Amino acid sequence: MTAILEQIKEISLPSPSKIALVIIDGLGGLPHPETQKTELETAQTPNLNSLAKKGICGLVVPVSPGITPGSAPAHLALFGYDPFRFTIGRGTLEALGIDFPLQEGDVAARGNFCTIDKKGVILDRRAGRISTEKCLELCQQLSQIKIDKVRLWVSPVKEHRFVVVFRGDNLRPELSDSDPQQVGRKPKQVAALSLKAKQTAILTNEFIAKAKAILMNSYPANMVLLRGFSQLPHFPTMNEVYKLKPAAIVTYPMYRGLAKLVGMEVVDSGDSIEEEFKALEQHYAAHDFFFLHVKQADAAGEDGDFLRKVQVIEEVDAALPRLLDLQPEVIVVTGDHSTPALLKAHSWHPVPFLLYSQWCRSDDVAEFSESACAKGSLGRFPALEVMPLALANALKLTKFGA
Amino acid sequence: MTAILEQIKEISLPSPSKIALVIIDGLGGLPHPETQKTELETAQTPNLNSLAKKGICGLVVPVSPGITPGSAPAHLALFGYDPFRFTIGRGTLEALGIDFPLQEGDVAARGNFCTIDKKGVILDRRAGRISTEKCLELCQQLSQIKIDKVRLWVSPVKEHRFVVVFRGDNLRPELSDSDPQQVGRKPKQVAALSLKAKQTAILTNEFIAKAKAILMNSYPANMVLLRGFSQLPHFPTMNEVYKLKPAAIVTYPMYRGLAKLVGMEVVDSGDSIEEEFKALEQHYAAHDFFFLHVKQADAAGEDGDFLRKVQVIEEVDAALPRLLDLQPEVIVVTGDHSTPALLKAHSWHPVPFLLYSQWCRSDDVAEFSESACAKGSLGRFPALEVMPLALANALKLTKFGA
Repeated sequence: MTAILEQIKEISLPSPSKIALVIIDGLGGLPHPETQKTELETAQTPNLNSLAKKGICGLVVPVSPGITPGSAPAHLALFGYDPFRFTIGRGTLEALGIDFPLQEGDVAARGNFCTIDKKGVILDRRAGRISTEKCLELCQQLSQIKIDKVRLWVSPVKEHRFVVVFRGDNLRPELSDSDPQQVGRKPKQVAALSLKAKQTAILTNEFIAKAKAILMNSYPANMVLLRGFSQLPHFPTMNEVYKLKPAAIVTYPMYRGLAKLVGMEVVDSGDSIEEEFKALEQHYAAHDFFFLHVKQADAAGEDGDFLRKVQVIEEVDAALPRLLDLQPEVIVVTGDHSTPALLKAHSWHPVPFLLYSQWCRSDDVAEFSESACAKGSLGRFPALEVMPLALANALKLTKFGA
Repeated sequence: MTAILEQIKEISLPSPSKIALVIIDGLGGLPHPETQKTELETAQTPNLNSLAKKGICGLVVPVSPGITPGSAPAHLALFGYDPFRFTIGRGTLEALGIDFPLQEGDVAARGNFCTIDKKGVILDRRAGRISTEKCLELCQQLSQIKIDKVRLWVSPVKEHRFVVVFRGDNLRPELSDSDPQQVGRKPKQVAALSLKAKQTAILTNEFIAKAKAILMNSYPANMVLLRGFSQLPHFPTMNEVYKLKPAAIVTYPMYRGLAKLVGMEVVDSGDSIEEEFKALEQHYAAHDFFFLHVKQADAAGEDGDFLRKVQVIEEVDAALPRLLDLQPEVIVVTGDHSTPALLKAHSWHPVPFLLYSQWCRSDDVAEFSESACAKGSLGRFPALEVMPLALANALKLTKFGA
């Protein structure tokens, strides 16, 4: 555990007060060249504006200035877990991303179908990006592979991507990649990076050899590349650290996996933003912390669809009264990172943040937007500070020192 | 390497985009008592103001709040190298400052000519601040000293200050100072601080003894004091860490040395500000990162010459269109630290900062000045964040985590 989490653990108290953390994925944006307004600044958000006016605002730096984060490290930071310390292997992350019920001790790896020539040299690391249907078909074939004393699953992700999971006794993830990450070379043997991982290296190489034989006539997808061997990490739970009973209201697999990793209970959340807010109402009594995740803003940003992102934000604003009516002691609305439609990708830009509570010491920001939050009295601050602030405003932290 | 540099190294990519980092040495100032305006606020800077208006602004904290830095640590921080971790010994710094071609393995020390009495007790640690001409003459005498298996150079710096460099096999810098840093005491024997440094301690003491003999009749400069024994440090280069091809446009020796230490190519830069901007034009095609250093503002500040510092800043502003015409993707203008003319010295005050890029998410600062930048949306931030921000804005960093 990091020093700050240890400190918080020492001073956190269970209490009846409730915290709602609404994460609009990829919330931050860049100004449209015609209007000079970002997606959030373009959206009509009367409810968010009024909450910003009553609350305290700022700009959150997701993981470190200038760094563009993936959604996993960005969310961990918002939950108070330093993403440079609490890392998740690539294989595990892919398994979480397809909702694979990974168990403790399983070893997961990210796989690519790839193309090799007759000598075994890699011609295309992505096998011409085969269709997801083709990927599913090949994964079903590879799932038939038998290896002594091990159960294994090969599950499609998208196009050429898949996940392979090995389950057995004493499996270890300290394994080198078989993927050399460049064409013109042969796939590498998986090597054990610790003595204990020797047996696991042998069986993963056996898997790769059998996969190669099965795929022999499946050009262009005639070989596999594995990387990011990893196991479910052990993170302290939000209950241990914060004494919370957290619920996650999420609609995308990876976020369900992340929420479980920090000990949240993932509740049935429906598919739409409105259904998520309904789920919040339904589960409100049984929990004291709610992570409500809105994926659609990020998806619109990645598609470069400025207006759709505006609409998603307006949809959240329209649903907000359901949350307000529940009167949680603390409401936080922010994003995990920026996804400006103009960049069609995640970016490094800090993210608008608002916190409302009876005790927040409001500033004079009267609008929820990048430019207004830049003038908020929280300034530009690291995502790791969000949970301590939320807990403090919920009066869930006792004094540090005498 | 520090953790953040390791991270940046993992995610940095070579790309055609270009970054110009203009450092006006000692840029920050304090308000003149008559006008209540700082040097920068007094200067007419239409080009910097318009760049600030298009860009994003803030105040840079050079190395740590309240700390007044030397130019070496302040520049290292701007280059992304934590000056508390990447340290340069005093002897090495002095050698860089006089453009001495220090080689790997050389041991350099900072020297003072001093005055001792007949019993060898120090009366004046600076020998009455002898003239630089006298210093040169004495250094030439000391350069005649012969020590077995070692080459040595004694080079004047200014007044009583000199540098001595020893070159030979297996020389080590783990040596205590001979300078007791106070009068009324005798110079100390140089002691080895590691087993391997024993031989080097012996030969430096031999040098000191021979110097004493030579200087016997050179009162008041009748003895030497040595301190800061050190070797050229090994820093990761900006190419290794950032994948950049950096060029340094500098006119002062120490900055050339610093630039080389982080792997910049030091190009022929002329003597004046205008010539430096011409050099930028000439070398623009061959590099993707440009450190352009303007020393004159700091020199004016140290002289307490408020108006000359104003003029230097105006000269930079007048030359700026040459840089703007090149249209680099990212332009940063800031200083390494403040040198208020009113203090006639470096100071701890944070330094005005502006960054312009297509993706900077501009704030509403419309003027490049201490007071305007204090309201910029970057807030008050550490110099170590400058490079990650510049690289991000040049789209040279990929995503951290999935």
